[in-house]
Amino acid sequence: MMNAVCDTSSPVQDLLERYVDCLDEDRLEEWPELFLENGLYKILSRENEAMGLPAPLVYYYSRGMMEDRVTALRDALTYEFVYSRHLITNTRISARDDIIEASSNFVIFHTCEEGRSKTYAVGRYRDVIVETDDGPKFKKRTVILDTFAVQNLIAAPL
Amino acid sequence: MMNAVCDTSSPVQDLLERYVDCLDEDRLEEWPELFLENGLYKILSRENEAMGLPAPLVYYYSRGMMEDRVTALRDALTYEFVYSRHLITNTRISARDDIIEASSNFVIFHTCEEGRSKTYAVGRYRDVIVETDDGPKFKKRTVILDTFAVQNLIAAPL
Amino acid sequence: MMNAVCDTSSPVQDLLERYVDCLDEDRLEEWPELFLENGLYKILSRENEAMGLPAPLVYYYSRGMMEDRVTALRDALTYEFVYSRHLITNTRISARDDIIEASSNFVIFHTCEEGRSKTYAVGRYRDVIVETDDGPKFKKRTVILDTFAVQNLIAAPL
Repeated sequence: MMNAVCDTSSPVQDLLERYVDCLDEDRLEEWPELFLENGLYKILSRENEAMGLPAPLVYYYSRGMMEDRVTALRDALTYEFVYSRHLITNTRISARDDIIEASSNFVIFHTCEEGRSKTYAVGRYRDVIVETDDGPKFKKRTVILDTFAVQNLIAAPL
Repeated sequence: MMNAVCDTSSPVQDLLERYVDCLDEDRLEEWPELFLENGLYKILSRENEAMGLPAPLVYYYSRGMMEDRVTALRDALTYEFVYSRHLITNTRISARDDIIEASSNFVIFHTCEEGRSKTYAVGRYRDVIVETDDGPKFKKRTVILDTFAVQNLIAAPL
Repeated sequence: MMNAVCDTSSPVQDLLERYVDCLDEDRLEEWPELFLENGLYKILSRENEAMGLPAPLVYYYSRGMMEDRVTALRDALTYEFVYSRHLITNTRISARDDIIEASSNFVIFHTCEEGRSKTYAVGRYRDVIVETDDGPKFKKRTVILDTFAVQNLIAAPL
């Protein structure tokens, strides 16, 4: 009756969606599982990226570091409560041999407890994804962050 | 010459697009026609939804109620003129037997008569869609509204 | 291993993406190349469009005019530095004979040197695209601009 709809038919698209869902639905514990054991997660300001300055704002280079981060967010850090909502657009995916490259633009809205929403961060994801026995995983996700003046950058993953 | 492009090839995607178009282009009369005769349209604050509190902000449970709403908007209510623009992303569609489930993130921008745009509302649609002789229709559209502090929520459908 | 993913498989989608990339990545010189030699680029306020008033805010009717514009932007005009980021959604594409029609909603975010992002402009693209020996090109791109009160409209293409 219904033909397959493309944006849900690809395991890679599904990975990109699950990333969003686990952050927006506050299931942070699932976030490291989307990466390889030695996967990279990096936030770079767009300014630094444009100038070829490699110093990242955030840099985790293993799933363990991401899990530590989640533990800290759950147990130690206090920060203002917000709901987040990612809108992901302009996704481009290309595959060469076993390496899949993807990029997407994003805007993240935050909504405070009083129900007011604001643009929190804008930027672009640049991904290297590989197939595993457990489906595709991020080998590397680089967040190119336009909005580097975010107030609570260190709190949650983008 | 050109292969079918996916995001326009599916009747379900087309339904999602026509929903946006009739609201953004102020053709409100077409909005109830996208639902089953006994279709449901519900706006829930994200907060209530997260806490399992079912009280909706808006709840119509038939096409007739939606038509009444449109009549009221046209004839009785006065509210500030704005242009609306929906941006729909992260659409996921799955079909099981005759039931199609879909979800999408959305942001709605409003632009006032002076030409200034602002983020009006952010949230997620959760849909149950069924095939009819007249193409797919919403059996149920639930609007999970992050931005529950909207000023003129009761005016037009989201 | 991976099936083709639709939103990158179509040359038309690719044209839409390259348009965004050359503007967001400040490769303005590539922007006129996406149009036919006698291609049209037009910015219309949504208000004017709704009232059937055809006077555009911006109107270029050849690739040469666009190139002149880029030269002026590079050499003559001074304007505040910003990073731009286009998010394109709700793309619909239809083909009839050799004419391809497309439309998309857009929001453009601008980020200033201090790293703060704001909604710059919201609207809809309406395109006529034709195949050439050099791939698809815009015969006409009309920008229906909701946000007509933009401060520096005349600076860069939208």
